[in-house]
Amino acid sequence: MTFLITGGAGYIGAHVVRAMVLAGEKVVVLDDLSTGNEDRVPEGVPLVVGSVLDRLVLEKTIREHKITGVVHLAGKKQVGESVEKPLYYYHENVQGLTVLLQAVADAGVRNFLFSSSASVYGMPDVDLVTEDTPCAPLSPYGETKLAGEWLVRAAGKAHGISTACLRYFNVAGAATPELADTGVFNLVPMVFERYDAGEGAKIFGDDYPTPDGTCIRDYIHVEDLAEAHVAAARKLAEWAAAEDYKDLTVNIGRGEGVSVAEMVELLNKGTGHDRAPVISPRRPGDPAKVVASADKINTVLGWQARHDVSEMVTSAWAGWEANKVARKDAHRDVHKA
Amino acid sequence: MTFLITGGAGYIGAHVVRAMVLAGEKVVVLDDLSTGNEDRVPEGVPLVVGSVLDRLVLEKTIREHKITGVVHLAGKKQVGESVEKPLYYYHENVQGLTVLLQAVADAGVRNFLFSSSASVYGMPDVDLVTEDTPCAPLSPYGETKLAGEWLVRAAGKAHGISTACLRYFNVAGAATPELADTGVFNLVPMVFERYDAGEGAKIFGDDYPTPDGTCIRDYIHVEDLAEAHVAAARKLAEWAAAEDYKDLTVNIGRGEGVSVAEMVELLNKGTGHDRAPVISPRRPGDPAKVVASADKINTVLGWQARHDVSEMVTSAWAGWEANKVARKDAHRDVHKA
Repeated sequence: MTFLITGGAGYIGAHVVRAMVLAGEKVVVLDDLSTGNEDRVPEGVPLVVGSVLDRLVLEKTIREHKITGVVHLAGKKQVGESVEKPLYYYHENVQGLTVLLQAVADAGVRNFLFSSSASVYGMPDVDLVTEDTPCAPLSPYGETKLAGEWLVRAAGKAHGISTACLRYFNVAGAATPELADTGVFNLVPMVFERYDAGEGAKIFGDDYPTPDGTCIRDYIHVEDLAEAHVAAARKLAEWAAAEDYKDLTVNIGRGEGVSVAEMVELLNKGTGHDRAPVISPRRPGDPAKVVASADKINTVLGWQARHDVSEMVTSAWAGWEANKVARKDAHRDVHKA
Repeated sequence: MTFLITGGAGYIGAHVVRAMVLAGEKVVVLDDLSTGNEDRVPEGVPLVVGSVLDRLVLEKTIREHKITGVVHLAGKKQVGESVEKPLYYYHENVQGLTVLLQAVADAGVRNFLFSSSASVYGMPDVDLVTEDTPCAPLSPYGETKLAGEWLVRAAGKAHGISTACLRYFNVAGAATPELADTGVFNLVPMVFERYDAGEGAKIFGDDYPTPDGTCIRDYIHVEDLAEAHVAAARKLAEWAAAEDYKDLTVNIGRGEGVSVAEMVELLNKGTGHDRAPVISPRRPGDPAKVVASADKINTVLGWQARHDVSEMVTSAWAGWEANKVARKDAHRDVHKA
């Protein structure tokens, strides 16, 4: 078996590549390096620089590397940017997926894993979000993920492909400092950026109907997330080998809510800071509480999270500190240019 | 004002073109003639033969004809085919829409009307379906319509375009025999085809939880539907002229349910047949009852249906009879080839 990992040079992708390699699986990375970094791809893992929108690159890669399964993580993932550029997001995320699935179907590849997101649920009005909670995404980003899931399941049925859609909750942490998230679009790196500027964390809204008034989320360590991919990819390969084509849609979360205020405390503690958070007004579209039920993935794949939130904070901070020099260099280069 | 009508050589498209022309609007048709027929485009209306997936044709057409608004009806619309070929449906319907909207945004066109469908609702568990009834499409066709609506609204917000999504219920009838539906994918022409074969109508399931046990639908005369497009296109142009970019999503139905058994009676009566229907098992995915609330379109556009179901039947039958010779010729050509 050889798995093609699209977006394998990204933050999550590189962790999935690492986990697959550690588990003894053969992998090939396809990444257009628009946000990914080739340094994240380990030695010995072939990197094809190209886009999932490029049919010819896909055909060649699948043929030359004898790909038997695809783990599709490539895609645009910034909610705010998707509101400004919805056509770009549909082109990259939905059309990219369409081209990739057509290549997969035509080449006879029989298993396909798709990275989806808790954003498909929108504002879920339930205590724990199960996979049967109605989907009502609130941003073009979330819409491209839900439309992507529909397409994956329909193409799987039409063409005999085992498929999985993994709905990520809030991903944080790093397996090694080099693989840490370098973007600043999630809570943890956003707070780190404020620490560097000498400021405390920013909390958007403390008047939500939750115990401490701040939003509640379900954080998942990227290493746990990556291991869920290994388990899912192997399950798909098992189904495909038996010609028993099925689809699987599962949440990946810890099944435990952590409020933003609690997270800020953990962040201060885990990084040795002692800065009071700054309370800002609510952001439009932020649901009060989104916590996964992780029962289904545990039942079907035997997977469960092993790392707690403190480990996410300390590993992310180690990565942030290690990348400080690189960020300063980048900053200086910008000012020189 | 000049409106580009994509899919204007199709059954519904030709009726929209006719209604726009009768209302004094200037129109241009873009149709790839994959299912449309150029004979349906009236003299004096320019026909550009091309696909909405062809960016260059779109740019040229918008520029040369000084298009100020787009009525987008082109698309694939067979539910069963969409299950077999989901990738084709996403490419044609979602990617086609993405390319078209990008051309519209780049050219500064400020109003855009999109043909959606009651299929976005899936199996609505309500007596009357309002525009706020949750959407949960059941086929790739319906999914491409809902994803299309999302994209239309998001692109409208991002680029300053007034948009409308019109959710068609069950369209039937013809304004003139030449414009009648030539496909046999809807109840009315399917029954006519059985009449021609000497058989009675086929009813799929008579054990639904409805008064007579057969499914209940909301039928709308294609002439009424076309007039709703004129009203919506004018409203969009009015908003755009005031630089007040809004989006409008409305049902187009009569707001009255007709059961399949009642429809079969009307069909027998309207065509002079007297054949007992044949009861077959339920088809998977057929909801028991789907009837529109037509309040919103009446309030916002002042539109309401003028033609009843009997008029749909008799006008459709006149078209079916008129096209009999053409169908026989086509049949003979196939056998000769």
